[in-house]
Amino acid sequence: MRAVVVSRPGPPSVLEVRDVATPVPGPEELRVRVHAFGVNRADLLQRRGMYPAPPGSPQEIPGLEHAGVVDAVGPAVEGMASGDRVMGIVGGGAYAEYLVTRADQLVRIPQGIAFCDAAAIPEVFVTAHDALERLAVVRGEWVLVHAVGSGVGTAAVQLIAARGAKCIGTSRTDAKLARARELGMEAGVNTAGGDFADAVLQLARGGVAAAVDLLGGPFLQQTIECMARRGRIILVGLSAGRRADIDLGTILRQRLRIEGTVLRSRDDEEKAAAVSSFGISVMPLIESGSIRSVIDRVFEFEQVAAAHEYLESNASFGKVVVQVV
Amino acid sequence: MRAVVVSRPGPPSVLEVRDVATPVPGPEELRVRVHAFGVNRADLLQRRGMYPAPPGSPQEIPGLEHAGVVDAVGPAVEGMASGDRVMGIVGGGAYAEYLVTRADQLVRIPQGIAFCDAAAIPEVFVTAHDALERLAVVRGEWVLVHAVGSGVGTAAVQLIAARGAKCIGTSRTDAKLARARELGMEAGVNTAGGDFADAVLQLARGGVAAAVDLLGGPFLQQTIECMARRGRIILVGLSAGRRADIDLGTILRQRLRIEGTVLRSRDDEEKAAAVSSFGISVMPLIESGSIRSVIDRVFEFEQVAAAHEYLESNASFGKVVVQVV
Repeated sequence: MRAVVVSRPGPPSVLEVRDVATPVPGPEELRVRVHAFGVNRADLLQRRGMYPAPPGSPQEIPGLEHAGVVDAVGPAVEGMASGDRVMGIVGGGAYAEYLVTRADQLVRIPQGIAFCDAAAIPEVFVTAHDALERLAVVRGEWVLVHAVGSGVGTAAVQLIAARGAKCIGTSRTDAKLARARELGMEAGVNTAGGDFADAVLQLARGGVAAAVDLLGGPFLQQTIECMARRGRIILVGLSAGRRADIDLGTILRQRLRIEGTVLRSRDDEEKAAAVSSFGISVMPLIESGSIRSVIDRVFEFEQVAAAHEYLESNASFGKVVVQVV
Repeated sequence: MRAVVVSRPGPPSVLEVRDVATPVPGPEELRVRVHAFGVNRADLLQRRGMYPAPPGSPQEIPGLEHAGVVDAVGPAVEGMASGDRVMGIVGGGAYAEYLVTRADQLVRIPQGIAFCDAAAIPEVFVTAHDALERLAVVRGEWVLVHAVGSGVGTAAVQLIAARGAKCIGTSRTDAKLARARELGMEAGVNTAGGDFADAVLQLARGGVAAAVDLLGGPFLQQTIECMARRGRIILVGLSAGRRADIDLGTILRQRLRIEGTVLRSRDDEEKAAAVSSFGISVMPLIESGSIRSVIDRVFEFEQVAAAHEYLESNASFGKVVVQVV
């Protein structure tokens, strides 16, 4: 089969399409003929050699989510058959014509949703749903979402609206804030100037109940200042940096909670639990059309380096997808 | 009545015993003739003007816990009567001969426990129990407790052992570690040299599941490094400082949770809930004698300044108590 391989750590040009062995499913695995895959920021880090694939996943072929058709099924697999249209998460290996995975890390693609649209769903909606569950966001609460134009951001804003909660999104560009409003964002704050806490507190008097933080770094202290008493912050990404200098006095006085999360390195059972919860709570909303994947651009398989360059440029709103067929 | 008043912000000598009006209970309140009260670090901060009393509590008279006898009961109070021996938490006002409080912020003193022993119980056992509940500590887990010789520390180590979990305590003096071992601490680490993470990881291979942190400040990053995957940290005090420079990458990768807590500023309903949980889960252990208050020294009412000086010296192991009668 053809697959995209990280030939060595480096810029997008290190991604090479090569002929590699087609993977063979074990007794409890099935094989998917990949039609499209999503590009994630974790892939960019992995390409640069800063984020090796988790143990048990393909080490050279990146890719955390896929949409395609089941084409081989191990004898111990129940409930899936060749020909089923599926989408799912994997620890790696989605940048390829074929991958092997487990049935509990897949969901069926609803009728009427194309492979490219489906490939943009799993990683960001499982992540955003899992984050909102951990935050225990309920109706009427204010929720701050940083980088609201990102894949996870565009998923979170829709899931927050679906819960009857109110999303304040941040972005460095007004155009992304305008588009996020169309997805159900209640209010937006432009963070190009660096400060956002005062603007957030103007909107959510007394502070926000929860925050989905994709930035981290020096912004975390401001996020802490945005929180209401007993506010909950979940750290999903660190695009602004790993180190943070924070005021623990506010965390004590306001009784705040800060939690970190990552999907890729979880073990199979925990991933299966997250996919199951997503299947129960989010798939019906996707099937009914009340929430949807947000795709900025679809690239051809041979253009995967351009897809990386584009995501790295921070120009995209929503997801960047690569079409395999 | 006589009460201890903070005459102005400053050193222990600003504490003055004065004659003030005896408080009168409202319809839903009762009055306690205080026989003894515990001294807490929050009182030291309040005396220095850095931690004003919460709204609705006496502003000039400190004191967060007491033991005594009910001597007047409002008409709407049920389940308590004059003459009952009680102990409890208050938002302030315990440094006095009388205080008014609510029945749901009290528990009865078990037979055979003296007022001075009882006065050392409420604040630290409610705080430590509430912290361990929030951490959801279960049998067999390793739990790190900083400042294990403090009042909260000596309560936490006993409650951790009662849960069948294993406590690693830290202190700057070997003598305190030796005494904490007698309370059920599994292993101790002397932090006088500043470093403790390597020693903790030697004891708890793979890291500790939970941590009760009374230090904060520059030690928090080391505490983060001590944690196992999905570890939980609760910040109960900040005696090492308010600011912390932390590595968010570890928080994400290990999926850690950091939570702040404080008892004093909670509203009445939340305090009542914490006291109720303590009454259900901890009081039976106190009644049976399997856990106990740990008292370092009892001071006379007129020596309250000396009690503050002693707690500030960090020489004490367990609680410092003042006897009113």
